[in-house]
Amino acid sequence: MKPKRIMEHIPSFLDADPFSNELGIKLESVSDNSAVLSLSVTQKHLNGHGTVHGGVIYSLADAAFAVACNADGIPSVAINTSVTYMKSIKSGKLIAKAYEFSKNHRLGSYIVEVYDDGGEKIAVFQGLAYRKSKK
Amino acid sequence: MKPKRIMEHIPSFLDADPFSNELGIKLESVSDNSAVLSLSVTQKHLNGHGTVHGGVIYSLADAAFAVACNADGIPSVAINTSVTYMKSIKSGKLIAKAYEFSKNHRLGSYIVEVYDDGGEKIAVFQGLAYRKSKK
Amino acid sequence: MKPKRIMEHIPSFLDADPFSNELGIKLESVSDNSAVLSLSVTQKHLNGHGTVHGGVIYSLADAAFAVACNADGIPSVAINTSVTYMKSIKSGKLIAKAYEFSKNHRLGSYIVEVYDDGGEKIAVFQGLAYRKSKK
Amino acid sequence: MKPKRIMEHIPSFLDADPFSNELGIKLESVSDNSAVLSLSVTQKHLNGHGTVHGGVIYSLADAAFAVACNADGIPSVAINTSVTYMKSIKSGKLIAKAYEFSKNHRLGSYIVEVYDDGGEKIAVFQGLAYRKSKK
Repeated sequence: MKPKRIMEHIPSFLDADPFSNELGIKLESVSDNSAVLSLSVTQKHLNGHGTVHGGVIYSLADAAFAVACNADGIPSVAINTSVTYMKSIKSGKLIAKAYEFSKNHRLGSYIVEVYDDGGEKIAVFQGLAYRKSKK
Repeated sequence: MKPKRIMEHIPSFLDADPFSNELGIKLESVSDNSAVLSLSVTQKHLNGHGTVHGGVIYSLADAAFAVACNADGIPSVAINTSVTYMKSIKSGKLIAKAYEFSKNHRLGSYIVEVYDDGGEKIAVFQGLAYRKSKK
Repeated sequence: MKPKRIMEHIPSFLDADPFSNELGIKLESVSDNSAVLSLSVTQKHLNGHGTVHGGVIYSLADAAFAVACNADGIPSVAINTSVTYMKSIKSGKLIAKAYEFSKNHRLGSYIVEVYDDGGEKIAVFQGLAYRKSKK
Repeated sequence: MKPKRIMEHIPSFLDADPFSNELGIKLESVSDNSAVLSLSVTQKHLNGHGTVHGGVIYSLADAAFAVACNADGIPSVAINTSVTYMKSIKSGKLIAKAYEFSKNHRLGSYIVEVYDDGGEKIAVFQGLAYRKSKK
C-alpha cells in the first residue's frame, strides 16, 4: 500500500513556487498519481482580446502535471508538453485535473483536463516527465 | 509586396495584453511572418527548484507565436501547441524567435526557438493557429 | 437521441482505406464519439530493433482517432497529433481506444490510449481534427 | 572533428527495418545531426479520401527523425512526437528533412519538415528522443 505521507511535501512544494503563487494557483486535492488545482481569473490573467491568456491556462495545467508527477516523491521534470485549446474564458474559475497515464523508471506520462467552473471543457494537456530515479 | 504597415498594430497588440506585461515580455522585432520577443528573468518567474517556471518559458514562446501569426493582420488564435524543454535557466534573459512554417486560409503553423542570452538552446515550441479569414 | 445509423458508414470507411488494410487494422467497436481498433503484430510491422515501428503504433492510434471523429457523420481531418511512447512491443495484439475530449463546430479534440493484449500501456495520443461543418 | 564513419551504420540501419522497407522509404542523405529521406506515393499509401494517409507521412518523418538522432552512433528511441498537417497530397514524392534542434546526454530534440516534390510544405514534425548514453 502507498503510504499517505508521500504526498505530504506537495503543499510546501507549491508554496515554494513563486510563479504559481504570483498566478494565484491553489491546490484542491492530490493523490499519489493525480492532482486537482485551480485559479480564480483576475484582470492580470487576460490577453489583448480580454480572454484568459494561453500562458495562464498552460501554467495551471503544467502545475497540476508537476504536482501529480512529483506526488510519489521521485523528483520529476517536464520534458515535453502538448496542449489543445477548445474554448476561451473571460472570468470565473479554472480547474485542472491531472492524472497519470503510465510511468516507468525514467518517464511519466500524464493527461490534464482543464474546465471552467460551469464544467465546460477549456483545454486538454499531455505531459511527459523525466523521473530522476536512483537506479 | 507586403506593406510594412501590416505590422504597425503589433506594439499596441502587446501593450494591450495584461499578462504579457505582468511577465515583462518585450518585443524585439517583427516581420510579417516572424517575431523576436524577450524577457528578463526575475525572482517571480521561478519555480520551487529556483529555475524559471515552464509556464514562463511557454508564455514567452506563445507570445512570440501570437505576434508572428497576427503580424499579417488576420486575427489568429492558438489551437494547439507543443513544447520540448532541453535546459533549465536560473537568471539572465530569455529570447524567443518565432517563424512561420506554413499557412493557408484557415491554419498557420509556426516554430519558436527559445534561447538564453548566451545562445544556449532552452526549448523548442510548435504552434498551430486558427486564422479567422473572411472567405 | 443520436441515431444509431450515424456510425453505419464507418466499416465501409475503413474498408475503403488501403493503408489501414495494408497494416491489418480492424474495427472492434464504435460509438458516436469513441472507437476501438486493433492490429495483430507481424514481421512487417517491426523496425530494426525487432520491436513494433512507431509508425505502426501511430497509424493504429490515428485510425482510431479518425473513426471516432468521423463517427458523427461530419467529415473531419487530422490537423495536429501528439504521441508519447511508454513501452515497446514485439508481438501479439495492439488495441487503440479513442474517445472524444471535446468538440465544437470547427474542431474536435480526442485522446487515444494504446494497449497490448495484456493490458500494458504502450502509448498515449492526442489528436485535433478540423470539422468540415456546414454553417 | 566528427569522424565521417559515424554515419556508416545508417544505410544498414534502414535496410534492417522491415516497416520502412514495406513503405518504400529511401535514404537520400545523412550527416551527424540531420537526414533527408523520401518516399514515392503509390496506391497502398492512400486513405479512404484518396490522399496519402497521415500514418504514411508520419512514418516517413519519424524515420528521418530516427536516422538523424541515431547518426552519431548513440542508440536513441523516440519518446514523444508532435506533427501538424498543413496540406494533403495524392501522388508524387514525399521528402522529409530532419535536423537537430538540441541534444544533451539524455535527450535529443529534432524538427522534421515534410515537402512534396514541388517544394510545397505538407507537414512539420517535432521529435524528442531518449539517448541511451553510457554515463
